[in-house]
Amino acid sequence: MNQGTSFLDDPDDTREAIMRATYVALGKHGYSDLTIQRIGDEFSKSKSLLYHHYDSKDDLLLDFLEFMLTQLEEQLPVYKDSGADDHIQDIVDQTFVFGGTHTSDDFARAILELRTQGANDDAFRSYFTRSDQFVRKHVAHTIRSGIEQGIFRDVDPQETAALFQLTFVGTMTQRVTSDDDVLEDARAEFERYVRECLLAE
Amino acid sequence: MNQGTSFLDDPDDTREAIMRATYVALGKHGYSDLTIQRIGDEFSKSKSLLYHHYDSKDDLLLDFLEFMLTQLEEQLPVYKDSGADDHIQDIVDQTFVFGGTHTSDDFARAILELRTQGANDDAFRSYFTRSDQFVRKHVAHTIRSGIEQGIFRDVDPQETAALFQLTFVGTMTQRVTSDDDVLEDARAEFERYVRECLLAE
Repeated sequence: MNQGTSFLDDPDDTREAIMRATYVALGKHGYSDLTIQRIGDEFSKSKSLLYHHYDSKDDLLLDFLEFMLTQLEEQLPVYKDSGADDHIQDIVDQTFVFGGTHTSDDFARAILELRTQGANDDAFRSYFTRSDQFVRKHVAHTIRSGIEQGIFRDVDPQETAALFQLTFVGTMTQRVTSDDDVLEDARAEFERYVRECLLAE
Repeated sequence: MNQGTSFLDDPDDTREAIMRATYVALGKHGYSDLTIQRIGDEFSKSKSLLYHHYDSKDDLLLDFLEFMLTQLEEQLPVYKDSGADDHIQDIVDQTFVFGGTHTSDDFARAILELRTQGANDDAFRSYFTRSDQFVRKHVAHTIRSGIEQGIFRDVDPQETAALFQLTFVGTMTQRVTSDDDVLEDARAEFERYVRECLLAE
C-alpha cells in the first residue's frame, strides 16, 4: 500500500476519485473522526454520489480496502523464474515499508485503526484475513521458487511466509504506537535471519 | 501480562481491587465502551473512591497499565547465571503468549485497543514505548549472558532483542485482528531461527 499510485495522482473514473478522496480523508482525520461528509470534502464531484453508492462509512471503507488490495496485487513485481534472492530482498523492503518513509505516518496510523476494528467487527477481520493470506501466498511462492532454483535452503515455505507476514504486522503496529527507532535494529536482525537461515550456503 | 496473577484472585488492598475491577471491565467492554461507571460495577467498594482517585477513564487506564508493567517485571523469572538457553525458550513462549491461551481473547483485544490509542495519544504511546523498552532490555540481557556462557552465537543483543519484541507485537496484533492460525506456522519458523541463528553450533 504505497503512496504515489496512479489513482492518487490521476483518478481514472468516479470510483478512483472516491478512493482518492477516502485515502486523503482517512489520513487527515483517522478512522474515529472520519465521516462520509469529510470524505465528500475531498471529492470534486457531487457528494450525493457517495451517499448513493455507500450505506455507511464502514461500507465505503471496506470498499476502499478492497480497492487497495487490488492495487497491491497489481503493483507487486511480476515474478520471473530467476532472481528469487533479489525478490526476497524486495519482500524484506516491503515487510519493513511501514517502518520506512514510503507510507505517510497518517496513513499508516489509519490502517492500524482499521485493522483494530477487526478485533470487534467480522467484516474488517475477514478483510485483513484475506489480505494477510495474500501476502503469505506471495511470499511462500517466492520461497518455493528460490528453493527450486537452489538459492534458498530447503525450508518450509508456508512457515517462512508466516513469519514474514507476522513481522510485517509487527512493524506496522510498532511504527504507529510506540518507539519506532527499534525498527532499524529489528530489520538488521531480520536481514541476518534471511542471510543465515534462508539463503543457501 | 498473564492471567492468574494474585491481584486478580485476591486483591491485597484498595488499589489492587481497583486494578482487578479495571481488568475485568476492560475485558468485558473493550476500550471504546469502557466507562468509570462500568469499572465501578466490578468493584466491591464504594464507587466514589474511583472518582476520587482518577480524573478520567484514560487516567485510570494509564495507572492500570503501569500496574500491569510492574506485575510483569515482578513475574519475570529471576535470571540466574546459567541456563540462558532454557530462558530463551521461556522468552519464545512469552513472545507467542498472545497467540496462545494464556491470555483471554477479550483481554488481548483490549490491550491492542489501548496500544492503538498510542497512535493519537502521547500518554499511551509513551507507556507502550517504555513497556517495549523493558521487554527489549530483558531479552537483550538474556542474549548477552548466553553469549558469555557460550550458549549463543556472537550476535548483536540489541538487534536480536528488537526482532523478538517486534515479533511479540506482531503476534498480539495478528491474534486479535486477523487469521490466528498463522501463529503456529510463524512460531515454528521463529523457533528454527532461534536454533539455527542464535544457538551456538
